[in-house]
Amino acid sequence: MMEHREPQSKTAAVTVEVRYAETDQMGVVHHSVYPVWFELARTQLCRQTGFSYDQIEASGHYLLVTGLTVDYRKSARYPDSVTTECRLERFASRGLRFTYRVTAAGTLLARGSTDHVWVAAATGKPCRVPAHLERPFALLAPTLSEP
Amino acid sequence: MMEHREPQSKTAAVTVEVRYAETDQMGVVHHSVYPVWFELARTQLCRQTGFSYDQIEASGHYLLVTGLTVDYRKSARYPDSVTTECRLERFASRGLRFTYRVTAAGTLLARGSTDHVWVAAATGKPCRVPAHLERPFALLAPTLSEP
Amino acid sequence: MMEHREPQSKTAAVTVEVRYAETDQMGVVHHSVYPVWFELARTQLCRQTGFSYDQIEASGHYLLVTGLTVDYRKSARYPDSVTTECRLERFASRGLRFTYRVTAAGTLLARGSTDHVWVAAATGKPCRVPAHLERPFALLAPTLSEP
Amino acid sequence: MMEHREPQSKTAAVTVEVRYAETDQMGVVHHSVYPVWFELARTQLCRQTGFSYDQIEASGHYLLVTGLTVDYRKSARYPDSVTTECRLERFASRGLRFTYRVTAAGTLLARGSTDHVWVAAATGKPCRVPAHLERPFALLAPTLSEP
Repeated sequence: MMEHREPQSKTAAVTVEVRYAETDQMGVVHHSVYPVWFELARTQLCRQTGFSYDQIEASGHYLLVTGLTVDYRKSARYPDSVTTECRLERFASRGLRFTYRVTAAGTLLARGSTDHVWVAAATGKPCRVPAHLERPFALLAPTLSEP
Repeated sequence: MMEHREPQSKTAAVTVEVRYAETDQMGVVHHSVYPVWFELARTQLCRQTGFSYDQIEASGHYLLVTGLTVDYRKSARYPDSVTTECRLERFASRGLRFTYRVTAAGTLLARGSTDHVWVAAATGKPCRVPAHLERPFALLAPTLSEP
Repeated sequence: MMEHREPQSKTAAVTVEVRYAETDQMGVVHHSVYPVWFELARTQLCRQTGFSYDQIEASGHYLLVTGLTVDYRKSARYPDSVTTECRLERFASRGLRFTYRVTAAGTLLARGSTDHVWVAAATGKPCRVPAHLERPFALLAPTLSEP
Repeated sequence: MMEHREPQSKTAAVTVEVRYAETDQMGVVHHSVYPVWFELARTQLCRQTGFSYDQIEASGHYLLVTGLTVDYRKSARYPDSVTTECRLERFASRGLRFTYRVTAAGTLLARGSTDHVWVAAATGKPCRVPAHLERPFALLAPTLSEP
């Protein structure tokens, strides 16, 4: 039987360099890039469950995005080093909410959130959290919620 | 003196074909593409003021995105014909909110919104709505709000 | 038995409006966008075989890109209407070459080409052109080549 | 007077993790992403001249892309760690050619090249290499070519 220990950290952070292709003619990073950075940090947080997102997909499940919010404060610019932090804010049997903070050189650039449901690849339909992922994800949540 | 007539329609709609590059390995359009479609429809709605967005920029002003929400209902797939409708939901002297509906073959795929502030290109700072744009944009709002 | 008639045209052309997200801080469309436009025109040309690219994939085959060239002449700008034409330049049993011309208001912006091989989805390996596609694609080629 | 020393290395390498958004429904990284990775590595190589690309732009010059080739060998997949190496292959007074190798876990995924001309931001016209950049870039070239 596999034992799921409390993850060492409940936050993941990924730092990337702004790509020239990500800027627009306003001279700043286009706002559609932030959800891509969110996803990078979410991928990193998932690893802390012991199951990487590609393993989750390989086992026949998707975490489909059902909602997105971004609150933009300051513009990111080429070639800033941008750090995106991700936390699991809410975890329930059928859905999750991750929250994000994007910073550069200590300055807050944006906050955001994504909502997700589990989807079974075989049916394309929403489903309950796969049994083997329930506890690892619950341990990432702020308090051990009833999944 | 320029006369600003009520625009013929307060909604803009743009139909595009899903690009293969917009899909991801889940087999659907990646969620970061929807804000790009929103922008296409917003560009179209701006034209209905009589001032295209590139003209607005050329006159020294930006409409900076400060907020984004997307509520995803159904996945878009390659090569769907996807229609994005845009409305100006709220118009005030310093900010605007546009709302969006994305459909394919009559099925709702997503709803969303973007918040914006006017920024003076010369200073990079938020500013009041440029005088020549105040009435044209107000006329796009649901009721003629006090700008 | 299906009859394959000479397609009405051996060229496909797709016109799209430049998206703000496609510009970069140089004030022009980023060069990585052109392959995406190429793909839109290629999708359109494939339809002229009577088999759309999504049908080709559904039947278990991919047209994998193995080579890309772009020769950039003039910059595309927001919100230009950009037309991409696609032709099948070369067709052989294991590979194809498409060529492209990108124009805006009659001015040549870029030329390019893509090379492709057929891949069987089941194995992920290169394969011969699927039998049902051999003649339809051959008919798109400049002269009816020996496939 | 500034002294330009031989750069410590004539190659730059940047490693990034494949982003989910970069995949397509074929289950691999879309081919239009490679030029973006090329640009990341080129940005890194430019730094080795002592003048970062954003400094070059700030001083009023662009390195406009005039040509692109990519030869794809193996597909990149989410979440591979992908390394892109960049070299300055050719340097002349009006143009440059960079070459690229993309690898993952030691396996070659792609090779490519980009051609560039110097453009004066003030005029938007091609120009000679800016005087202060001539020697730093020449030192990156394989042999000290006559600029």
